[in-house]
Amino acid sequence: MPSRYLSFRCSVPWLILFLETLFLICFFFFLPDVYNIYSASASYSYREFQDVHHMLIFGFGFFLIVLRRYGFSSAGFNFLLIVLGLQCSVLVENLLIFLQVQHEGEGGVESLTKAVVSVAAVAISTGAVLGKANPVQLIVMSLVELIVFSASRWINKTFLQVPERLSLMHVHLFGAYFGVAVTSRFPEPPPGLDKNRSTPKSDLFSMLGTVFVWVFWPSFNSILSYTKMKAALNTYFALAVSAVAAFMLSALTSKDGKFRMTHIHSAVLAGGVTISYKAGTIQYPWIAMILGLLGSVITILGSHCLQRCFNPAFKLQDTSGVHFTFGLPAVLGAVAAVVISVVEQRMEWNDLSSLGYLIFVDVGAFCQTISTALITGLVTGLILNIKLLKTTHVSKYFDDQFYWEFPHLSVGF
Amino acid sequence: MPSRYLSFRCSVPWLILFLETLFLICFFFFLPDVYNIYSASASYSYREFQDVHHMLIFGFGFFLIVLRRYGFSSAGFNFLLIVLGLQCSVLVENLLIFLQVQHEGEGGVESLTKAVVSVAAVAISTGAVLGKANPVQLIVMSLVELIVFSASRWINKTFLQVPERLSLMHVHLFGAYFGVAVTSRFPEPPPGLDKNRSTPKSDLFSMLGTVFVWVFWPSFNSILSYTKMKAALNTYFALAVSAVAAFMLSALTSKDGKFRMTHIHSAVLAGGVTISYKAGTIQYPWIAMILGLLGSVITILGSHCLQRCFNPAFKLQDTSGVHFTFGLPAVLGAVAAVVISVVEQRMEWNDLSSLGYLIFVDVGAFCQTISTALITGLVTGLILNIKLLKTTHVSKYFDDQFYWEFPHLSVGF
Amino acid sequence: MPSRYLSFRCSVPWLILFLETLFLICFFFFLPDVYNIYSASASYSYREFQDVHHMLIFGFGFFLIVLRRYGFSSAGFNFLLIVLGLQCSVLVENLLIFLQVQHEGEGGVESLTKAVVSVAAVAISTGAVLGKANPVQLIVMSLVELIVFSASRWINKTFLQVPERLSLMHVHLFGAYFGVAVTSRFPEPPPGLDKNRSTPKSDLFSMLGTVFVWVFWPSFNSILSYTKMKAALNTYFALAVSAVAAFMLSALTSKDGKFRMTHIHSAVLAGGVTISYKAGTIQYPWIAMILGLLGSVITILGSHCLQRCFNPAFKLQDTSGVHFTFGLPAVLGAVAAVVISVVEQRMEWNDLSSLGYLIFVDVGAFCQTISTALITGLVTGLILNIKLLKTTHVSKYFDDQFYWEFPHLSVGF
Repeated sequence: MPSRYLSFRCSVPWLILFLETLFLICFFFFLPDVYNIYSASASYSYREFQDVHHMLIFGFGFFLIVLRRYGFSSAGFNFLLIVLGLQCSVLVENLLIFLQVQHEGEGGVESLTKAVVSVAAVAISTGAVLGKANPVQLIVMSLVELIVFSASRWINKTFLQVPERLSLMHVHLFGAYFGVAVTSRFPEPPPGLDKNRSTPKSDLFSMLGTVFVWVFWPSFNSILSYTKMKAALNTYFALAVSAVAAFMLSALTSKDGKFRMTHIHSAVLAGGVTISYKAGTIQYPWIAMILGLLGSVITILGSHCLQRCFNPAFKLQDTSGVHFTFGLPAVLGAVAAVVISVVEQRMEWNDLSSLGYLIFVDVGAFCQTISTALITGLVTGLILNIKLLKTTHVSKYFDDQFYWEFPHLSVGF
Repeated sequence: MPSRYLSFRCSVPWLILFLETLFLICFFFFLPDVYNIYSASASYSYREFQDVHHMLIFGFGFFLIVLRRYGFSSAGFNFLLIVLGLQCSVLVENLLIFLQVQHEGEGGVESLTKAVVSVAAVAISTGAVLGKANPVQLIVMSLVELIVFSASRWINKTFLQVPERLSLMHVHLFGAYFGVAVTSRFPEPPPGLDKNRSTPKSDLFSMLGTVFVWVFWPSFNSILSYTKMKAALNTYFALAVSAVAAFMLSALTSKDGKFRMTHIHSAVLAGGVTISYKAGTIQYPWIAMILGLLGSVITILGSHCLQRCFNPAFKLQDTSGVHFTFGLPAVLGAVAAVVISVVEQRMEWNDLSSLGYLIFVDVGAFCQTISTALITGLVTGLILNIKLLKTTHVSKYFDDQFYWEFPHLSVGF
Repeated sequence: MPSRYLSFRCSVPWLILFLETLFLICFFFFLPDVYNIYSASASYSYREFQDVHHMLIFGFGFFLIVLRRYGFSSAGFNFLLIVLGLQCSVLVENLLIFLQVQHEGEGGVESLTKAVVSVAAVAISTGAVLGKANPVQLIVMSLVELIVFSASRWINKTFLQVPERLSLMHVHLFGAYFGVAVTSRFPEPPPGLDKNRSTPKSDLFSMLGTVFVWVFWPSFNSILSYTKMKAALNTYFALAVSAVAAFMLSALTSKDGKFRMTHIHSAVLAGGVTISYKAGTIQYPWIAMILGLLGSVITILGSHCLQRCFNPAFKLQDTSGVHFTFGLPAVLGAVAAVVISVVEQRMEWNDLSSLGYLIFVDVGAFCQTISTALITGLVTGLILNIKLLKTTHVSKYFDDQFYWEFPHLSVGF
């Protein structure tokens, strides 16, 4: 297929070049002297940005190396998308400041911090279409997702008065459901394909990535919080319990009572997602621990239900299982956040109307985010699968050789 | 053997569930509002906890991947034990505060920091029984070890007036000898077994883990010290010399003058163990460097002596060689600590009685710790090998397939 | 060849022992009580040293694992050289203080920080002779390089008044051209050799190392800067653009429009090298981004030109491509630094003589560094290839089995 390859060369580099030129021009006009602004916001440090950045680059890069012949693309494209997404996200953040939509006095590390948190949505969505989308599709998807997520946060902030840092915690919910909606528009791989299986080696790499994400999660949840230490400790306890529960539930639900690596991959992270909305305000570690436990339970049960009933029914293939790894715990977390808020408010015996308003805001932000994610995801999925973008044929799914030069004698793990 | 598997399912998940429920109840009753207490102790930061935590999770996780068919279990069970051990350890720490045994004003990150240092004992002991103990045995061993280590520290503190942070540095000594004592009660694997060999790939993973432990060791030794910077620099110099000496001694002692990977694994870490007792007080870097050199020498010589004479005589198999990697350098470090203390005291021309008391305390704490480790380790080993806990048959040693689902075509590295 | 092996044993351990003894004696005499001096310089923290140290140990260690049968040696020797080099470098730094050449009041972490930055030169040069030099040659090369680099910095500082921290940023330039000069004196491997190829697995390890270097580069460039945050952010933006450009240019220049892993390895790092001289002073992110883009372009173009024309003409084999990965972007960076300085100065309408002096200093320091690197590199290469040092035969190039014991059944990736 030389013509396909030729056309592939004609698209990817020029798309990247166009984007980089656009970014450069935007940086030139909209980020005048960003570093002077920095000094004002001492609460964001480069250290914390670094933690979350490591989590995205290493964690998700290796978390995605689950497929036997897709290691280069998983790690490489994740790296490309995060780096490209960060630039786009910094621009969107600063554009909002420039257009006076956001208050001034931000910039530098603060906008970089918010950008890196937003980019987590891209890393999550990539997991859903892993091996099925080509680089052009992935790049377009990332940019659309970042802009839509930014718009969704702006709606939450302007119409529902949700604070910025809470709104950013919808990143898992948005990323997972956007990814699921996009992947539902891709044709299913043929059932006999063995390239979408894992090997012991790729599973070990993937576990390394999972643990990387796991250890940096307290930094992720606390980076935007005012009570950083409390947020980090609560997240740590929730993650610890969900890691232990992952082993327990895996042995309980799998055949022969053995541990299943895919369960461990997804369930150890559930606690961090579940607690993300309330990490900074929970007062007692045992509440965090119960949330971690529930997150782990819903992930393992969800992985069984979704893979057996939901996915075949909707003909969607969620390669890395982002729906049950990030989507379901995020829904649980949103519900738990409402419940905890209500209990906290009731303790203060406030009037019912303020309680109702509180529930309305939380539920509204949740519904707005998830419906925006699903609708724009579906539209993006449809756009990505038009002929123009040269979709990958299903027989070429999950194959590094389609995108990477292999001077090696052997291929794959 | 379907009946074995079934019984395995009946034990592991319920044991974990029981423990987690117990932990949750204890957290509910004994950790009321732990975060308020935090503000008092500003000397412990989340950053330092993170360093030691990374060292345990990544370092020991990969350090243990030496066996050809045991990668999943090595990394997975290490992760499970550390996470479970941390919760148990935090509880024990806070229980002591609750029972008014320890002074108040601690909590939050401080108790988490002490907990994470204690859990290093579990990671070390796990190395000794690696591949021979099943998850139930490992979990029981970890919990017993953490409780006994806590009791041993309490004895050191109450009867010998050893400060908490020095007492915690016995963690290597305790972990190594507890592990050796436990592993001596396990039946030896048959001599023809090739599953307990390593492959070049697993050796490389293990070296990655070793280097991870190596780079974070200065943080480990300095985390509890009052003179953090001095402790970190001294440890760094000791580690640097022991790493160089490891290469030198490996080429000197091995056949053909080549380097042997197992020597490098164990000897590069020796300096960190040897200096652990005195890292914060040594005044000159050259003393730290000599300690690092001696640590490396005793480890390499010990690895030859122990593997040829000691281990066959006592019919014990120390899978990861924790005896010579952590045990012998810790003994050397304890001796060196006494010598350095005596030299320092003599310089101040104090009276002999205070010198004698000093030696008595150091030697007493050392003897108490090592004998507690050996005795409780032997008892734990005996208990673990009763029929009830469904010990792994020697033919199933060192095999991931016994504990993990393998949907893959090929197994192992 | 038992006689060769025997002679190998007679050289490496004794050389290391001699060096360590020398270091110990020097530390004893020249570093009295280094820690007391520390308190004076609060601007250098152990955290930042740690970042750069991780970058060297993990990043370069894995960056060098590109060869199919040379994983142990790549990671192991890199570790040995860095640890040995650090001790040597700390000594040289402190010797200068002792000899009153440098101002007092430094020491502790500050000298360790400068030492770790200098050692990057060794890690870069090692990449050029990877697989061709034996451990004795590597150790001699490292020590010579560190001493010469220190002398070159001293010349820059004394005669050209270049500040210490700018002079240290010549480390990439010096390391790359020293390495290229040394490797040109080594005989070329026979053309049919397949041991200097990579495998998908080794490429993935190498990519992991590259990304490790990439994420810690902002720390490397900012560690010596007075405006740390600005330096880190500028470096980050330059690296982000060069990573994106690496993918773009790889798809543009390779056959079939696919991505080539070796392009990604080298070009993603180019931005960090190019901006190293000016990271702390550039005012606008878009300048940093343009520098990153240009760095990536020169690296990819350079890799094609050098590998096709330059290397065959000079009969040199640059195993890891350090010439185009670090050398060319460093040259570009030096040129860009002069241009940016001139533009900045012109804006202030200063008189022409001060402008001329500025250009003279920058160009002078650049020429002095590169010519010192090339000349001493050639001399070192000649010395290393005398019979006495028992050079490796070309048929034994790139082979772990020559240096490491292999109890394993299979060898290599």
